[in-house]
This record gives sequence, structure tokens and C-alpha cells, in this order.
Amino acid sequence: MSLKKIDLKEKLSKFSDYWSPRIIEEVNDHQFKLVKIKGEFVWHDHQETDEAFIVLEGNMNIEFQDGMVNLSEGEMYVVPKGVVHKTSAENECKVMIVEPKGIINTGKEGGDLTASNDTWI
Amino acid sequence: MSLKKIDLKEKLSKFSDYWSPRIIEEVNDHQFKLVKIKGEFVWHDHQETDEAFIVLEGNMNIEFQDGMVNLSEGEMYVVPKGVVHKTSAENECKVMIVEPKGIINTGKEGGDLTASNDTWI
Repeated sequence: MSLKKIDLKEKLSKFSDYWSPRIIEEVNDHQFKLVKIKGEFVWHDHQETDEAFIVLEGNMNIEFQDGMVNLSEGEMYVVPKGVVHKTSAENECKVMIVEPKGIINTGKEGGDLTASNDTWI
Repeated sequence: MSLKKIDLKEKLSKFSDYWSPRIIEEVNDHQFKLVKIKGEFVWHDHQETDEAFIVLEGNMNIEFQDGMVNLSEGEMYVVPKGVVHKTSAENECKVMIVEPKGIINTGKEGGDLTASNDTWI
């Protein structure tokens, strides 16, 4: 058993690209991921899972077909399973995501912003 | 679907007792809980689950039979399933826990520090 703790800021300092989640830890079948975002993502959903967003630094929006949530540092929101959403951030925003192993960031939408779902940092 | 986000600091301001986790959100079968700790907890384990600790403010220790982890703000550690541990904090520490629904804080140990496992805030 490792006694190594995880320093979120140290992990965040190790990458700079946007929309490319890095896995930092697992709790049972769920994973903690860090991602930096800027600009607009694509509309998509995850038919198989809820998705938790916790803002560590900055400010982001989660847009829905009938509304929007704006998150600042220290705020969180869970997008329910199957709900179509689009994330965006005017300036760089650092986010922790909690979701099950194996989830693809763009759902079934594909496209240029589709990232690896198995990159640890 | 609610568009209400969760402000971690606002939720933390709503209670002051120690060792009594409050549920703030769920992602699938896992829950996010907030807890304030001070002093020493009891040795225990959770045979059925890993347990994630993320320090939001302050400083805490997680002691094991063969070592210890010290966590400060912005640091996290996941205690693996079945591993005996004891948490402690010299001064008040504010912590987010992620674990499945229904977990009892003291495992099978019981005692005065056993808290509700179904209190939302």
C-alpha cells in the first residue's frame, strides 16, 4: 500500500493542454480526474453515468438545453446521467471531475476534443 | 433537474460539530460528504470500500498500522478497502469524503463517535 498523498496543485502543474483529463486517483470503480478547460466544449451526454464537476481555480459554465450553471472556485455540480450539456470557460479553469472508469469526455459525439480516457498523471 | 450548484464553504458554515459527516451530493452510487474533525477518531476499517479524503481547510493525519499520511489543504488520499486506519487533527480540519452510500464512519467498531450515515445538508 502506498502512503503517497496527492497534491492537487502539483498534479495540475504537470500539464497545460485543455480538455484533456488526467486521472489522479480511484475510489472503487470511480476515478478522480483533473482537467484544464478554456473555450467551448461540444454538446454531449453520458448515457451511463452522472458526472461531478468541482472547480479548483477559475470559473466555468455548464450549459443545458434549458438553463446554465456557473461554477467558481470551491463550487460543484453533478450533471445527471443522460443529460445533454456543454461546458465552457472564458479564461482557463482548473476542474476536478469524478466519474466511473472508462468514460469518454465527449460521450458518443466524437470529434477533435475527444481525449484519452486512461491517462494518469 | 435542479440547476442548484453546491458551494462547499457555504455548506461547511451550516454545522460545527466534529466527526459527523454531512452528505452534500451523489454521483451514481457514491456520495460526497463534508466533515469537520478535531482530536482523534477510532481505529477502524471499511471492508466494503475505499474511502477518499480531500482536505478543504486545515491539516489532518491518517494513521495506519505501519505508517502515516499528513494532509494539508488541497491534498487527498484514498484509504484502500479493508485497511485499518485512524484519522486525527490537532486543530479543526475541514474535509470532503467520497465513498459509496450507506457507509458508517466507524466501520464495525461502533462507539460514541458513530454518526448518522444519512444526514444531508
